[in-house]
Amino acid sequence: MALKKKPVTGMKDMLPREMEIRDYVIQLIKDTYKTYGFMSIETPCVEHIENLCSKQGGDNEKLIFKILKRGEKLKLESAKEENDLVDGGLRYDLTVPLARYYSNHANELPSPFKALQIGNVWRADRPQKGRFRQFMQCDIDILGEASNLAEIELILATTAMLGKLDFQNFTVCINDRNILKAMAKYSGFKEEDYDEVFIILDKMDKIGAQGVASELQEMGYDKEKTDAYLKLFGEVTPDVEGIRYLKGKLGDCLPDKTADGMEMIISSVEAAKECEFKISFDPTLVRGQSYYTGTIFEVRMDDFGGSVAGGGRYDQMIGKFTGQDTPACGFSIGFERIVMLLLENGYEAPKQGLKKAYLLDKKMPREGLLKILALARADREAGGQVLIVNMKKNKKFQKEQLLEEGYQEIVDCFEDSYDKL
Amino acid sequence: MALKKKPVTGMKDMLPREMEIRDYVIQLIKDTYKTYGFMSIETPCVEHIENLCSKQGGDNEKLIFKILKRGEKLKLESAKEENDLVDGGLRYDLTVPLARYYSNHANELPSPFKALQIGNVWRADRPQKGRFRQFMQCDIDILGEASNLAEIELILATTAMLGKLDFQNFTVCINDRNILKAMAKYSGFKEEDYDEVFIILDKMDKIGAQGVASELQEMGYDKEKTDAYLKLFGEVTPDVEGIRYLKGKLGDCLPDKTADGMEMIISSVEAAKECEFKISFDPTLVRGQSYYTGTIFEVRMDDFGGSVAGGGRYDQMIGKFTGQDTPACGFSIGFERIVMLLLENGYEAPKQGLKKAYLLDKKMPREGLLKILALARADREAGGQVLIVNMKKNKKFQKEQLLEEGYQEIVDCFEDSYDKL
Repeated sequence: MALKKKPVTGMKDMLPREMEIRDYVIQLIKDTYKTYGFMSIETPCVEHIENLCSKQGGDNEKLIFKILKRGEKLKLESAKEENDLVDGGLRYDLTVPLARYYSNHANELPSPFKALQIGNVWRADRPQKGRFRQFMQCDIDILGEASNLAEIELILATTAMLGKLDFQNFTVCINDRNILKAMAKYSGFKEEDYDEVFIILDKMDKIGAQGVASELQEMGYDKEKTDAYLKLFGEVTPDVEGIRYLKGKLGDCLPDKTADGMEMIISSVEAAKECEFKISFDPTLVRGQSYYTGTIFEVRMDDFGGSVAGGGRYDQMIGKFTGQDTPACGFSIGFERIVMLLLENGYEAPKQGLKKAYLLDKKMPREGLLKILALARADREAGGQVLIVNMKKNKKFQKEQLLEEGYQEIVDCFEDSYDKL
Repeated sequence: MALKKKPVTGMKDMLPREMEIRDYVIQLIKDTYKTYGFMSIETPCVEHIENLCSKQGGDNEKLIFKILKRGEKLKLESAKEENDLVDGGLRYDLTVPLARYYSNHANELPSPFKALQIGNVWRADRPQKGRFRQFMQCDIDILGEASNLAEIELILATTAMLGKLDFQNFTVCINDRNILKAMAKYSGFKEEDYDEVFIILDKMDKIGAQGVASELQEMGYDKEKTDAYLKLFGEVTPDVEGIRYLKGKLGDCLPDKTADGMEMIISSVEAAKECEFKISFDPTLVRGQSYYTGTIFEVRMDDFGGSVAGGGRYDQMIGKFTGQDTPACGFSIGFERIVMLLLENGYEAPKQGLKKAYLLDKKMPREGLLKILALARADREAGGQVLIVNMKKNKKFQKEQLLEEGYQEIVDCFEDSYDKL
């Protein structure tokens, strides 16, 4: 069989320049999140096929890379369908493995448990620009904390990290599934219609209020309801005042606890944030995943059409594994988007130390090499990045390339003068 | 389908204590290797099945986790064998993907290219204590450097890193495939028998010289040859003197270049090493991989029966992808063994900052929370690791647990006295 040079379809080789940024961002994420008390954990990239297909993953379950059973377990002759052949798959997110992990190890973990996961996930999406079939996710989750302290800490940690990467002009948008429901209920929609209504509402930023109204009416909802619904959105300001307004207006449809909690989160984040950003109440924020049970939030960036981080509360997923509901809330960064934005903006990771290259005359005697190795050792122990390479015939070109790679100091080392170095 | 709590067979959930060490070691590896001019790269975890089955991987090719083709490409009805169903697999090492990567990107990379790869690999080995089916590898490779500068830099970088982890009493053992061959040739073995002879020689440290002689004779090699062969090993000292002795003794069987190169590597490493360790010439060192073409080396640790790192020169692998041979030399750390040794020795990663926990009275008013969030922000900005948690009913037990997790300062925050904090 001929060897193939390209990576597999839809996946990517990382060149050194991108890796430099990735390594830097990963370390910054770890360092920042650890100051918030999050602890690193890791699960295998391969997960039981039963867990991956447990309806927690929505459409992602259609995109699983499945792994063939091995050895005696593989019965090719009698296999009727795909799932007769597979017992595992590559994880498509870090949330399902986290739920399994917690159910397996809760007794060995602190409560509440603040988990940090950085790892690759795989989805067999149609390949397209900027989207890959292997990509890195970076999630923080707080398990076992029912109070809004979870939301506050997650938002503060995520925004602190973005601030350290010099991102500005970003907005944390926040909403609650219970506010979504209360507004729909108040306007006269039936509970069984909520999901359909929210899918249309989710398009607000693309098609506008009028567009949403039209689509709802096209779906057969009467004008009275849709008018009341859209009017409500027009009356709500994107701040704590808006929440207070809804609390008064929606009456019994909206639990006091939800409104007070939202206000608490927003005012706490405003007061304690480590860097400059806006936090807005956004009653049109829906977020797709069906597993959310309360607060939902995302980070939007002016430079980028879309969200660069998202999360929310999912108090009922852990119970699917353990049989006992555990409060859970998480925030996931779009790591690949963040790296893409940094690369596009020409971001440079802070330099670690002097980059220095020693160019060696090919005839360098052993004593000369030993001298240069000793000099390099001293540079390296001082944290410098040191390259020792043989001099090429085209030394001028070699030096130009080294300068381009960021080498600030280039030392010629000749056979007859190394003792003067 | 019932959800499964355990990880898939042979793979491992990483608990926070182990992750703390892993994160620390990974960062130390990156920081150290970067001072030697190595650059991070990454390849996808999924590799073309053709590349994985190209005979570069030896027995590992029997242990591949294979990935099912997707969509229309999967023709279950007409599939006759496994490989009709798969087009990719999880990589079993980082060397084959590196060769593919280099063949794909050589024009975009410096020459020589010093690559650092840290990533998971997968092998469907029989599960056993301390060995897992997903494990991390950490490789440095220098591509395009024909001179011994490659070996010297690889050994210096690897040992510097081990020294920074406080490892002592380790030995770098070094040999060369050409010395192995020369000693066999000198003793009268035929070239076609070398591989068989070396497999037996490789057992020297377990069965001793007498055992090796017996096994060789059992395989049918005559006493004259085996006596000459074993006598030779008895005469060689494990240092540059031993190499010089062989250079004199073996005459034309051993190229001068090989002997001089070995001496150069050993004396340079001795002179320039960053920490204390021994470097020994070991004429019995074989290393299994058939792709090695020259120098081979490994790190042995007194505390641990076996090698914790290994590598060598493989000048003919890249050419299988590119059609043009490229000098290549690499050193791979047994990352999981290193972490296991550190855990067993009770190694603690250096603390990053004060670990402090604020325990919140459940009735804490909003002003109190804001006060505590502000205090925590200051602690965090100073690099401290800060936890804010609600006080539990059994506060004594909660505090004990926090102390056990390493929290050095625990602050009680009560509803009626938070203003005194």
